[in-house]
Amino acid sequence: MNGKNADPITQLMEELKKLPGIGPKSAQRLVFHLIRRPAEECQRLVDAITRLKEGLVMCSLCNNITDIDPCRICGDPARDHSCICVVEEPFNILSIERGGSYRGLYHVLHGALSPINGIGPEALRIKNLFSRLQEGKITEVIVATNPTIEGEATALYLSRLIKPLEIKITRIALGIPVGSDLEYTDEVTISRAISGRQAL
Amino acid sequence: MNGKNADPITQLMEELKKLPGIGPKSAQRLVFHLIRRPAEECQRLVDAITRLKEGLVMCSLCNNITDIDPCRICGDPARDHSCICVVEEPFNILSIERGGSYRGLYHVLHGALSPINGIGPEALRIKNLFSRLQEGKITEVIVATNPTIEGEATALYLSRLIKPLEIKITRIALGIPVGSDLEYTDEVTISRAISGRQAL
Repeated sequence: MNGKNADPITQLMEELKKLPGIGPKSAQRLVFHLIRRPAEECQRLVDAITRLKEGLVMCSLCNNITDIDPCRICGDPARDHSCICVVEEPFNILSIERGGSYRGLYHVLHGALSPINGIGPEALRIKNLFSRLQEGKITEVIVATNPTIEGEATALYLSRLIKPLEIKITRIALGIPVGSDLEYTDEVTISRAISGRQAL
Repeated sequence: MNGKNADPITQLMEELKKLPGIGPKSAQRLVFHLIRRPAEECQRLVDAITRLKEGLVMCSLCNNITDIDPCRICGDPARDHSCICVVEEPFNILSIERGGSYRGLYHVLHGALSPINGIGPEALRIKNLFSRLQEGKITEVIVATNPTIEGEATALYLSRLIKPLEIKITRIALGIPVGSDLEYTDEVTISRAISGRQAL
C-alpha cells in the first residue's frame, strides 16, 4: 500500500494510470475488479494484449493495422474494389465500419498535413495511394479526413493531386450531427451545413 | 474489423469492454494507444496483471489483500498497533491511506451486513477481529464502514459486540464534504453534520 515497487496492487495501478483516460480512481477500480475476477479472465486479457503486440503488421495495400496482409477489408472480394475512402488513422476505419453503409476499400494516411508541426506530404502514406490509383481500377476517392484545419488541408492537397488522374474525388459531408440541436451547434458547423445542403 | 475471433484488435477490445467503466470508445482508444506504445511498456502492463493474480493472499491478521503475510501495514512497527480502523473493502484502506492522517492498523470485513441480500454477521470477517481485540492490546476501534444502510447497520452491530470488551469504539464523522456547498448538500447529510457538530 505504500508505493514500493514490490507491491503488485500499486504496481498495476501505476501501469494502468499511464493509459489514456484512466486516472487514479479508475485504476484502483480496475485493479480490484481484476482481483475479484477468475484467473482465466485475466489470462484472456493478458493474452489479448500480448497478441496485439506480436501479430500486427501494416497492410501493404491500404496501410491499415492488421494481423494478415492484405488486411481483411482489402482481401474481401465482396467489397467494392472501385472505391477508396481515405482516412487519417486506422481507428477511423472502425468508426466508418460501425456506420455500416460503406462497402468500399480504405487508405490510411497515418496522420494529416500540419506544416506547423513539420508534417508535410512526404510524412504521410500518400505514395502508395497514388500507386493504387494509377492501376486504373478506382473510380472514386472519398476523403474522410477529420474536419480540422489539418484534415481540411489534407483533403485540399489530395484533391489537387488526384484531379489530374480524372478520378471522381468527394469529401464526406460536414454538418449538424444526427440527434443534436441547431441551438447548440457552433456557427462554423451551421455554415458548413448550409453550404453543403442537398436537394430533398 | 468484423468481429472474428482471429483479429487481435477486436479481441482485445472485447476483453477491455468487460472491465468496469470501459465502453466501446474507451476500449478502442486503449487498443490504439497500446499499438503505438513500445512493446516493453505493454509487457510491463502484462507482467503487472500476471503478478496481481499470482502473488496475492489475504493478510491473516487484518484480511487485507496483500503479497506478503502479514501485510505491509500490520508488519510496520512504526504504525500505532493499539488502534484498528474497520473497513468494508480492501480498497477503502487505499482511500484512508491517501488521507494521510491515520497511522493505526486496519481490519477488512469484506462486506457489510445486509439481511435483504442474506449477508449476516457470519458472512463477514468479524471472528478474527474479535480475536485481535481479545488479545488486549487494542485501545480504540474506529468504524469506517460506508454511510449506507448496510454500513450503518454494520457499525451498530460492531458497537454492540465490542462495548462489553471495554474498548473505545468510534465512528468516522459523517457530514458535509470539504469543498462542497451547503446549498447542494442533501438533507440527511446536513442533519448528520449538525448532530455531529464539534466544539470550535
